[in-house]
Amino acid sequence: MSRRLRMGMVGGGPDAFIGEVHRKAARMDGKIELVAGMFSRTLAKSQQTGAAQFVDPKRVYCAVDEFIAKELKQPAGKRIDFVCICTPNSSHYPVAKAFMEAGIHVMCDKPLTTDVKTAKAFQQAVRQSGVLFGLTHNYTGYPMVKLARDMVRAGDLGELRKIVVKYPQGWLSSAIDAEGQKQASWRTDPAQAGASSCMGDIGTHAENLAEYITGLKMVELCADLTTFVKGRRLEDDGNVLVHWQKGVKGILHASQISIGEENGLTIYIYGAKGGLEWHQENPNYLYVKSPDGPLQVWCRGNGYVGAKSPAAARATRIPSGHPEAFLEAFANLYANFAETLNARLDGKLPDPLALDFPGIDDGVRGVAFIETCVKSAKAGAVWTKLPKV
Amino acid sequence: MSRRLRMGMVGGGPDAFIGEVHRKAARMDGKIELVAGMFSRTLAKSQQTGAAQFVDPKRVYCAVDEFIAKELKQPAGKRIDFVCICTPNSSHYPVAKAFMEAGIHVMCDKPLTTDVKTAKAFQQAVRQSGVLFGLTHNYTGYPMVKLARDMVRAGDLGELRKIVVKYPQGWLSSAIDAEGQKQASWRTDPAQAGASSCMGDIGTHAENLAEYITGLKMVELCADLTTFVKGRRLEDDGNVLVHWQKGVKGILHASQISIGEENGLTIYIYGAKGGLEWHQENPNYLYVKSPDGPLQVWCRGNGYVGAKSPAAARATRIPSGHPEAFLEAFANLYANFAETLNARLDGKLPDPLALDFPGIDDGVRGVAFIETCVKSAKAGAVWTKLPKV
Amino acid sequence: MSRRLRMGMVGGGPDAFIGEVHRKAARMDGKIELVAGMFSRTLAKSQQTGAAQFVDPKRVYCAVDEFIAKELKQPAGKRIDFVCICTPNSSHYPVAKAFMEAGIHVMCDKPLTTDVKTAKAFQQAVRQSGVLFGLTHNYTGYPMVKLARDMVRAGDLGELRKIVVKYPQGWLSSAIDAEGQKQASWRTDPAQAGASSCMGDIGTHAENLAEYITGLKMVELCADLTTFVKGRRLEDDGNVLVHWQKGVKGILHASQISIGEENGLTIYIYGAKGGLEWHQENPNYLYVKSPDGPLQVWCRGNGYVGAKSPAAARATRIPSGHPEAFLEAFANLYANFAETLNARLDGKLPDPLALDFPGIDDGVRGVAFIETCVKSAKAGAVWTKLPKV
Amino acid sequence: MSRRLRMGMVGGGPDAFIGEVHRKAARMDGKIELVAGMFSRTLAKSQQTGAAQFVDPKRVYCAVDEFIAKELKQPAGKRIDFVCICTPNSSHYPVAKAFMEAGIHVMCDKPLTTDVKTAKAFQQAVRQSGVLFGLTHNYTGYPMVKLARDMVRAGDLGELRKIVVKYPQGWLSSAIDAEGQKQASWRTDPAQAGASSCMGDIGTHAENLAEYITGLKMVELCADLTTFVKGRRLEDDGNVLVHWQKGVKGILHASQISIGEENGLTIYIYGAKGGLEWHQENPNYLYVKSPDGPLQVWCRGNGYVGAKSPAAARATRIPSGHPEAFLEAFANLYANFAETLNARLDGKLPDPLALDFPGIDDGVRGVAFIETCVKSAKAGAVWTKLPKV
Repeated sequence: MSRRLRMGMVGGGPDAFIGEVHRKAARMDGKIELVAGMFSRTLAKSQQTGAAQFVDPKRVYCAVDEFIAKELKQPAGKRIDFVCICTPNSSHYPVAKAFMEAGIHVMCDKPLTTDVKTAKAFQQAVRQSGVLFGLTHNYTGYPMVKLARDMVRAGDLGELRKIVVKYPQGWLSSAIDAEGQKQASWRTDPAQAGASSCMGDIGTHAENLAEYITGLKMVELCADLTTFVKGRRLEDDGNVLVHWQKGVKGILHASQISIGEENGLTIYIYGAKGGLEWHQENPNYLYVKSPDGPLQVWCRGNGYVGAKSPAAARATRIPSGHPEAFLEAFANLYANFAETLNARLDGKLPDPLALDFPGIDDGVRGVAFIETCVKSAKAGAVWTKLPKV
Repeated sequence: MSRRLRMGMVGGGPDAFIGEVHRKAARMDGKIELVAGMFSRTLAKSQQTGAAQFVDPKRVYCAVDEFIAKELKQPAGKRIDFVCICTPNSSHYPVAKAFMEAGIHVMCDKPLTTDVKTAKAFQQAVRQSGVLFGLTHNYTGYPMVKLARDMVRAGDLGELRKIVVKYPQGWLSSAIDAEGQKQASWRTDPAQAGASSCMGDIGTHAENLAEYITGLKMVELCADLTTFVKGRRLEDDGNVLVHWQKGVKGILHASQISIGEENGLTIYIYGAKGGLEWHQENPNYLYVKSPDGPLQVWCRGNGYVGAKSPAAARATRIPSGHPEAFLEAFANLYANFAETLNARLDGKLPDPLALDFPGIDDGVRGVAFIETCVKSAKAGAVWTKLPKV
Repeated sequence: MSRRLRMGMVGGGPDAFIGEVHRKAARMDGKIELVAGMFSRTLAKSQQTGAAQFVDPKRVYCAVDEFIAKELKQPAGKRIDFVCICTPNSSHYPVAKAFMEAGIHVMCDKPLTTDVKTAKAFQQAVRQSGVLFGLTHNYTGYPMVKLARDMVRAGDLGELRKIVVKYPQGWLSSAIDAEGQKQASWRTDPAQAGASSCMGDIGTHAENLAEYITGLKMVELCADLTTFVKGRRLEDDGNVLVHWQKGVKGILHASQISIGEENGLTIYIYGAKGGLEWHQENPNYLYVKSPDGPLQVWCRGNGYVGAKSPAAARATRIPSGHPEAFLEAFANLYANFAETLNARLDGKLPDPLALDFPGIDDGVRGVAFIETCVKSAKAGAVWTKLPKV
Repeated sequence: MSRRLRMGMVGGGPDAFIGEVHRKAARMDGKIELVAGMFSRTLAKSQQTGAAQFVDPKRVYCAVDEFIAKELKQPAGKRIDFVCICTPNSSHYPVAKAFMEAGIHVMCDKPLTTDVKTAKAFQQAVRQSGVLFGLTHNYTGYPMVKLARDMVRAGDLGELRKIVVKYPQGWLSSAIDAEGQKQASWRTDPAQAGASSCMGDIGTHAENLAEYITGLKMVELCADLTTFVKGRRLEDDGNVLVHWQKGVKGILHASQISIGEENGLTIYIYGAKGGLEWHQENPNYLYVKSPDGPLQVWCRGNGYVGAKSPAAARATRIPSGHPEAFLEAFANLYANFAETLNARLDGKLPDPLALDFPGIDDGVRGVAFIETCVKSAKAGAVWTKLPKV
């Protein structure tokens, strides 16, 4: 890459979780440096994080307008190349929109917005703006997920038939949100999270994972959402029957009250000729199934993986048996985003494989999924078509 | 036990699968001997199996009426004590009814009948007959399933919230039924299997397992059934949203087209205080989950298992680390059935733990489940209440 | 088979463990029936077990001489066809010898004797006697072990290089033998167990497993044996460096004090072209490794297993996904022994695959292994050649 | 931390593997920046890497003397704070010595030297120099390894009895070193690797892991080393019996020819009260065993882990279920080294937990282990005492 990219950040203050994940992921490969940030809406807190991150205090902000205005005044060689937005859900859109309108490239947390209408309008605006837009549906950054996608694309499974994707967690099994645990509180607060907790926070990762691997969009679904913990304002569990394109049937279920489950995103895909299985918590392995041969365990980092999936090989930093995990997968989004941005800044076409990071279209479909789940559930868990997006 | 019980058999001829499973299970503990049988409706085939089983040729039959009539003429010390029925689905009921009406005790394969109305009438008749009736929902014979049930009963999981039970298989992923594979052909033939293939053959085991462990009955369900293999007459895949009693929500899914899956019956149960997980293919382990401690793996055959679950200890033949599996679990149904029958023949009350085998009531609920799935699916996968049974 | 074989038994009384395992294994397939026995040296205890096993009280004995004499007086159609010997180690040999000398076929527990010299003399005598002799090195009865052997024989691993075989248990981690636990007491008593506890009871199973799969005999070894529990008279742990034939190197380690390990017999084999791994506690899977492809998990009961290994297919009773385990593997020894004996009684040659059960030669090598371990350890864990046997 | 530390690097040029691992690990937390380096002895190659790393070309070197001299001329606020040495084995010592003598702190790859005598002399010199010295025995950076250590320290396992530690790899199963694969070539070249390949490259990690967790040093060992691949000059496999302090017995085995094994460092530890098991390839789990309760699986990132081991909690970046892996463990060495160095630069005492990184003493014992293995093997795999170090 011809330059180290300069990143600004909105979010990621003292009590945040995902902000530091973004920073570690962005930093890991040495091709991005954090140079400015609004880490909190409170200046003192913002400066506290800025200092811990060795950011020049003059480039630590506590308002979006000021952030944009002051950065635009920086000379070309110092100004941020893009901003990372890692705030609670409801501010993703207004913040992203402001940066986009200022012509600053954006890497944004999911979900994109809290309703489809806004999402579609924003999609239109982003397309017209020419701004590069990334969305951190981070689980698609795993090499073995890319391998799975390339196997499906190559027809190794034959015509697809069934998808089972689940995302159980247990951390909200009691009312820790009511007790003020920050991560729990905003995720179950409609004002900050939107109309859904479980589906918006994690269900949509499951939806995105299934689509990324299979290339199929959801057509209709039947969502049975439940709030198990008394007093909670948003659902903490959901079981969804899904019809995908091309007659594929299946299930998506997610939960925040499944005690003992940590971050159990798992997918099973079956076609007329084979099957696949992948577990996020043990991500270096892809289980490949055939009707008349042994189960195969494909292990990250091997030559035979790269031969099947150049995208998986590119997304791999260290040899087989030296496990990679969540942060490396997250970093793969940044790596491709950065390579694409660098190419654009150089006026070149990027390596086509560098375009493999989630963006505005994933975001719109994610919001459509969440909104349709909520609509279906409110109507009594009835079959509901997804909007065309 | 005061006597070795004499078993007769209907089914289990030369091409059968489950018949020999019944025989091995019945024989394993040395307390049951096979002395008579109608192994086929063709006499030569019936004699072929009879000879291989060292059954007296004079007690090998090819018609139910003759079987019953001749056995009833045997003296008390030679006559069969009970009959095992392991034919295709549609004959379970007529054969069982005939033996019941002759006052002969019955161990019968599931499903009980092919419709609820008949099942309920038969339930009534069995109750009035005084005949001992067992039904081979064999997966509840596993010791770790009994441990799971006893943990739930003891309140270790708190109030239950969610159940996920799945039963994926892949053996019908292509049209082997059309090619004449016998096991496949009858299971997908409405005349022999009833109105369902996947739900009737395996979905109902999943339903029974969930109920056995939790004690909860299904209230309503929404079943999305699909026939993926062209030309097949019954469904080969099903995804079902379920509401159980006491507000418990969840999913049951089963499949015969999930390539690479063999016999993957698996259950996950979550309550307000803990969780459980059990896998039929690796059945000696129960995974026990808590909100604030390590995952526990309870291993069959240990003292701490027996201390929690005398029923699990009773269902265990050999020490921990010496794995037990499918046949031993199947044999546990026979062991309890035999102990109960022996006590009855002695005019005694059996050990209460000996009563732990599935019976006519499980059978009726199983048929209700199958029928409701089919009804829901035909109406477009809509929520449908289970009949009161 | 042309007849159901009649089995007598020595051992397996009220407090025994392995006796009932033999009985269940022998009974499972319906081709062997228990008709006589000396289950204990105390008549009352022997009769107690005999009654529980429905054995005619007139054929329940409490002395070997009487057992043999009275059975020989039985008419041909009633007399036992063979005897099963499942007593503590030190009586295997004298009991087996007595039956052999009476011309009665023998299935005997391991180890064969407590010293090599006796073992070799007995081997000679058995060969001359014409008696059929089986030895229950039961772990070679597992289908996936047979598959492993057939893969090695077919050259799939190339020239072999390294073997790692381990057999950790933890049940003797405290002094339960001193507290009178019967299974523990005799195994650590030199008078009953011989010169070794850990190596004699389980190490020799590991040795036999490695030889069965690879066909290689041990050439020399260096054994570091330890007694960790105070007051115990025999070793409860051993670590052994081994040189096999053809330059194969490796390790055998066994333990009775490895807390948390249950019956963890596990083997890893590496050659110039591939590798294998098998775990007794999860026995339905064989892990097959290659230098440039995915890990393969071969699953018992599939067509591709039988295509590679007819012996594995023969040793399989139920379909894939319906797990088989310890008792079924044990029963496979009886099944082949019985088929071979039946053929002999019919004056026919048995199916060559029926000859696949351990016998007198395995017994002699097992004793040589144990004796060499003890000799090496006593000399300070020095390299010691195995005797030619 | 009061400052971002400036790192220099020796090694890690265009064809290197471990250099970029060091860089990613150092960069991940944003507290270290790479500002100078001699990435190769060829200037063009060194500049190539320097450019890719965005290092000022004026601070890219191709000779150690020049590197040191020029950096010492840098002003205090620009000069490197420490150097990372990640060259082939034989240059670790001379390079480290040169930087130490210049008063520059050192983070060095293992092994420390290629003989014990030099190692001890260097240890003495480092101690006198006051230079902070880290050694990348990186596997001790895993949180669950720290938890294991803290459990052993707390006496949870009781008096220790047995250790089994293994490190199988398969990547050198054929003669890729002879074909010029760079990573393979130097590791099997005595001039670059020292007297051992397998033990020096990976066996010593196993040795260090066992000592880190248990606190026990090796007393004597018996090493059976083999070169399986023809033409290779150093051993590619080793099986070692070990006596540790306090009567602990066990086995260490490592291999580079175990096909299908990738980087399978695994340890099992048994005491009088419990046991532990940890697998590097699935590093987020620690298996904890007791004589009379279920197996416990402790999962990284949970409160109960941190309650037992503050060191594990400190070494954890992201929540449970979001797996961490090799690079994060490696980064933990840098994090503690950096915190200790920062405190020293500030004239303060570091947090005692920050001192938890391997150093010169680990290095000396590692060299002693390698040397003793080679000595034992050459004498015919005889018991050999380790030198006092």
